[in-house]
Amino acid sequence: MGSAVAPELPHPFDPLTPDEIATAIATVKKAHGGNVFFNVVALQEPRKADMTAWLAAPETAARPKRVADVVVIAPGNKVYDALVTLDEPKITKWELLEGQQPIITMEELQLVEHICRKDPRVIEQCVLSGIAAEDMDKVFCDPWTIGYDERFGSSVRLQQAFIYYRPHIDNCQYQYPFDFCPIYDADKKEIIAIDIPKVRRKLSTAPSIDYHPAAVEARGGYRDNLKPINISQPEGVSFQVKGREIEWQNWKLHIGFNYREGIVLNNITFNDKGNVRPLFYRLSLAEMVVPYGNPEHPHQRKHALDQGEYGAGYMTNSLSLGCDCKGSIHYIDANFPTRAGGLRTIKNAICIHEEDSGILFKHTDFRDESVIVTRGRRLIIQQIFTAANYEYVVAWIFHQDGTIQPEIKLTGILNTYAMDPDEDTHGWGTQVYTGVNAHNHQHLFSLRINPNIDGPNNTVFMADAVPSEAPVGSPENFYGNGFYAKRTKLATTGEAMTEYNGATSRSWDMCNTSKLNPFSRKPVSYKLVSREVPGLLPKEGSLVWKRAAFARHAVHVTKYRDDQLWPAGRHVPQTSGEPSRGLPEWIGDGSESVEDTDIVLWHTFGLTHFPAPEDFPVMPAEPMSLLLRPRNFFSSNPVLDVPPSYSSTPSQLLANGSGVLDATDKISKLAFPGGSEDSVSNGTSCCATNGNVNGTANGH
Amino acid sequence: MGSAVAPELPHPFDPLTPDEIATAIATVKKAHGGNVFFNVVALQEPRKADMTAWLAAPETAARPKRVADVVVIAPGNKVYDALVTLDEPKITKWELLEGQQPIITMEELQLVEHICRKDPRVIEQCVLSGIAAEDMDKVFCDPWTIGYDERFGSSVRLQQAFIYYRPHIDNCQYQYPFDFCPIYDADKKEIIAIDIPKVRRKLSTAPSIDYHPAAVEARGGYRDNLKPINISQPEGVSFQVKGREIEWQNWKLHIGFNYREGIVLNNITFNDKGNVRPLFYRLSLAEMVVPYGNPEHPHQRKHALDQGEYGAGYMTNSLSLGCDCKGSIHYIDANFPTRAGGLRTIKNAICIHEEDSGILFKHTDFRDESVIVTRGRRLIIQQIFTAANYEYVVAWIFHQDGTIQPEIKLTGILNTYAMDPDEDTHGWGTQVYTGVNAHNHQHLFSLRINPNIDGPNNTVFMADAVPSEAPVGSPENFYGNGFYAKRTKLATTGEAMTEYNGATSRSWDMCNTSKLNPFSRKPVSYKLVSREVPGLLPKEGSLVWKRAAFARHAVHVTKYRDDQLWPAGRHVPQTSGEPSRGLPEWIGDGSESVEDTDIVLWHTFGLTHFPAPEDFPVMPAEPMSLLLRPRNFFSSNPVLDVPPSYSSTPSQLLANGSGVLDATDKISKLAFPGGSEDSVSNGTSCCATNGNVNGTANGH
Ligand SMILES: [Co+2]
Ligand SMILES: [Co+2]
Repeated sequence: MGSAVAPELPHPFDPLTPDEIATAIATVKKAHGGNVFFNVVALQEPRKADMTAWLAAPETAARPKRVADVVVIAPGNKVYDALVTLDEPKITKWELLEGQQPIITMEELQLVEHICRKDPRVIEQCVLSGIAAEDMDKVFCDPWTIGYDERFGSSVRLQQAFIYYRPHIDNCQYQYPFDFCPIYDADKKEIIAIDIPKVRRKLSTAPSIDYHPAAVEARGGYRDNLKPINISQPEGVSFQVKGREIEWQNWKLHIGFNYREGIVLNNITFNDKGNVRPLFYRLSLAEMVVPYGNPEHPHQRKHALDQGEYGAGYMTNSLSLGCDCKGSIHYIDANFPTRAGGLRTIKNAICIHEEDSGILFKHTDFRDESVIVTRGRRLIIQQIFTAANYEYVVAWIFHQDGTIQPEIKLTGILNTYAMDPDEDTHGWGTQVYTGVNAHNHQHLFSLRINPNIDGPNNTVFMADAVPSEAPVGSPENFYGNGFYAKRTKLATTGEAMTEYNGATSRSWDMCNTSKLNPFSRKPVSYKLVSREVPGLLPKEGSLVWKRAAFARHAVHVTKYRDDQLWPAGRHVPQTSGEPSRGLPEWIGDGSESVEDTDIVLWHTFGLTHFPAPEDFPVMPAEPMSLLLRPRNFFSSNPVLDVPPSYSSTPSQLLANGSGVLDATDKISKLAFPGGSEDSVSNGTSCCATNGNVNGTANGH
Repeated sequence: MGSAVAPELPHPFDPLTPDEIATAIATVKKAHGGNVFFNVVALQEPRKADMTAWLAAPETAARPKRVADVVVIAPGNKVYDALVTLDEPKITKWELLEGQQPIITMEELQLVEHICRKDPRVIEQCVLSGIAAEDMDKVFCDPWTIGYDERFGSSVRLQQAFIYYRPHIDNCQYQYPFDFCPIYDADKKEIIAIDIPKVRRKLSTAPSIDYHPAAVEARGGYRDNLKPINISQPEGVSFQVKGREIEWQNWKLHIGFNYREGIVLNNITFNDKGNVRPLFYRLSLAEMVVPYGNPEHPHQRKHALDQGEYGAGYMTNSLSLGCDCKGSIHYIDANFPTRAGGLRTIKNAICIHEEDSGILFKHTDFRDESVIVTRGRRLIIQQIFTAANYEYVVAWIFHQDGTIQPEIKLTGILNTYAMDPDEDTHGWGTQVYTGVNAHNHQHLFSLRINPNIDGPNNTVFMADAVPSEAPVGSPENFYGNGFYAKRTKLATTGEAMTEYNGATSRSWDMCNTSKLNPFSRKPVSYKLVSREVPGLLPKEGSLVWKRAAFARHAVHVTKYRDDQLWPAGRHVPQTSGEPSRGLPEWIGDGSESVEDTDIVLWHTFGLTHFPAPEDFPVMPAEPMSLLLRPRNFFSSNPVLDVPPSYSSTPSQLLANGSGVLDATDKISKLAFPGGSEDSVSNGTSCCATNGNVNGTANGH
């Protein structure tokens, strides 16, 4: 336990190393000149056929080649998709794209504010809104992808600029939104239009409400009644790391990271009593969309597909010990190109740590109070990314019992818009502070699951909890209590487009129908248990419905194909949705079989956010999560061998406690040792139940 | 912070003290003789009118009287409901009940096994099933409430006995179920009938699968790769306790406990910047039902209403430091009568502690990487109760932001039934181990909420996230993205019987319509956000549907009345459901107004459990939870004054970091300090984001 050894060669799933990024860049520059911008230099993931052959026989099979997936903007705003084979090195693909816009980099975003501040028409609008022309250094701009604007199409590279004001440099700008919206041309580096509402709204002059320390001090200061909680692992952590492969509590997996999805987990296996069983070939958050619900122009353009348009990797935070992460932490960095062809390293892009997870299992026999209590652990692999105003804390939580729990916490700041003091929001938003309208929106994520449940050939079944069809009083259901799990096989891509049903606790089972559990005789499976599954609220035929087609259904299933990674398409900015990219292209007429084959399950989950003043000026983190649970996969509870904190058996109790296992944590203590006589108890030794019916004291 | 002072007089919400229990018992015995059994001697909660008057003016208003609620079984199996005013003391009510059975105590349960073992017909059935008559000491019996059996009615006090075998005293009996079911008469203390299935099943002779240490050692022993995680609060805890009143992070509440519901939380308030605002008068889990879905006789009787029939207080565990609870823990005991009139104390019935809860809020400005990151805390008030085979871990989690999160974890052991090797379960159950059929079932809980949102007059609105009614292309919704929260007022008890709708992310808002948020101008409210809300699967008209009427709907709302505490009625065992007790009686024709008045919201939540081998022989804990969230209640984020771990502002960064707030936890450390060169990073100071586009390193 507790080592971190760097391997010699990159693992085929590893992101490109700094050297590899440099090689790819140099190769492209050599062939196409130095005046190109690198929007993407990333690993082209190994072809699955090559990779599975190598994973099966790493000593004998060919090691998959290292290939760079490169997206370049060359002079004349020409966009190229390229591949560079790195060991030679050699450009094997160089394809000009027409009318497609690659992902927007942080560097591109950074430029817009400076140009807005100098644009005469923007200055004019700021002055009209109530500020002095010489105060343009107090004007700030959050550039967003434009979504799609039919007036400008897809050929010109655009951003829309949300404009805010900071009376003081440290003010939270989102409390002072302007009402107009400049449109920025990234090719020309200039503002080409401004959307101005018919009814104008003045800039708010409300007193500021800030979250920074000086503001809190001015309001009376910080609370002083929080005592520290210390978490430590004096003997080290329980996981082992070799490069980017991690082993922990029978789990083994590879932790990748890319510009787009951020964390990517590959080749997840579980050691089941010595038998290493494959579970998932690849898991990631593959796309997301945040549609806003105000139908007034131009708010329909607010529906960022943050991962395809900016990248959850590009936007990720550098994490910090004792601050973002508490305990004993392992970090992994991320490496990306700069646009000009340099290297950008994000230190501590991923954090990994263990947590106590409370009681793993417990049972007390009511007869004699014989008891077992075992505490659980979880492993957390986490990143945090900042999408302009919002923060997303993405955690992949692994439990000892074989459950994987992706969890997302939303925090950060609401996107805001100006409102007049007596304006009616018409229900499309909420005034969260004087002059600040926060519009309704959804946060919808696409979880991409390539299952490998005891092998690559899997089938998805939908399961609904339903009553017996037989009526009350009939012989088959006389007392009316019969119910069962109704299973529906999703045999084709068309059948697999399915919705959530809360009333039937609907779940989806990824099954290997060739392997039956020895006891239940049901196929081994992992169950997708997800309860935060709102429907896409933009209507059928709407702009969002067309562009973010993956969000139309809670579940899609497709046949696995290399490079079908991102369900809104490869190049997302400024797609019109006509036709819809990604999933609808892959699904076609819906006739393809997804039965007993290598499949991908795409799951849309998330939440609908109606803002309230509690969310302002910064939001307390709101979590949502789902579970991938082994069902009929193991032949029994897989955590029976986790050491208990305490165990007594009937025979031990009959022998006056001889042989009782007491591994109680000795660090824990009473909150008020030696407190008042009658309300504070002495910590008894362990784990009694129900009291002694004749006496008063308890414990063993 | 950090004191525990015992007050002089019991708080009016306090459970009866040992002295008060003794007084009540002595008073009853003096009047009615010593030969009575005490099923209940508990606090009759103070009348709300008296209590609110006293809470408003404790110095001048009359202190509510201490009254004992007593249920007695007198010779001749006569059941009496009684009240004893304790300060005189005096019996003020003594009412004979006809055809009603009071709660079954642990002592009554303990008797059944001994009688089963000696009953000739039970012995005969055991022998028929395959064991020797002299092995009856290896036969064990879990007595359950009989539910309702129309052959026997409600006048005779009954239990049904689930019979199991232990080849060795330490074996888990649930792997060796018998197929027959004796019925026990608690009045006569004898077996009066045995339900024997038409098709017989032999006792399993499969090898045992146990979870006790000797069994684990025989299978290869415990895993040895878990390193300790220590959690400590060297400066003490952040909460204060006075008797059973607790204050923590602006919260204040009283922690009660009764035989029936276990933990009861009263008079919950939140100090909002000096203004103590009432939130909830009373919160509890008021009832539950666990219907099993096998329609074959006599399994319809398996639908325990565990709280009404056995009591979540009576069944509660004595908790133990460092085992059930980790960190710095405060415990509270519970006191109950014995049946004969003694005292039974459960030490450490309630545990209370704080936990780090991860990031409370974070935001990074992408321009300059100015950042704030603040960690959160939660307070956990917890009990664990054992209902025969199952364990329920009930936690009331309080968050700093005003959210209350009731959480229930299910663990323990499945209820099991015999099955033959090649038997078809017909989908009503799962073979979880050789010869062990675990039937489908639901765990449905009734959360009772008496809101007090800025005062007692509240109204419930149902909120659904729905698209704009206007079609795509219409002027009102041209791009089709409009959506809003549709609110439906639940004005009467009839209108308030409502179901969950996952597709619209349905929630229920408890509002004070007389108080509007200053910014949103919406009523101050607490929102019930609950996503584990299966419908009741036993059909309309079924036995369960009649007996557990509270489970018919996700939400009921009634007008508050003293003593309307338990939605399946006061005395639950052997109710026929004709008529249904509790909620349906109180709701009547559904015409009563529940608008702008003192109301109770009853929420049914839980899960449907289709067993799998992973759940056997003991279940890894499965959690479910819901949220009560302040919405439009506070005028801004209520946790802005929680000290951040790190904060830097734009002006501080321009001043080279001067004035940056760094309160990073110094205990946390790298998992692999001084690990490998390229994969292990040095913990940078704090909280950078996005990398530096020109260089490699980061941090501040
Ligand atoms: Co949001
Ligand atoms: Co269950």
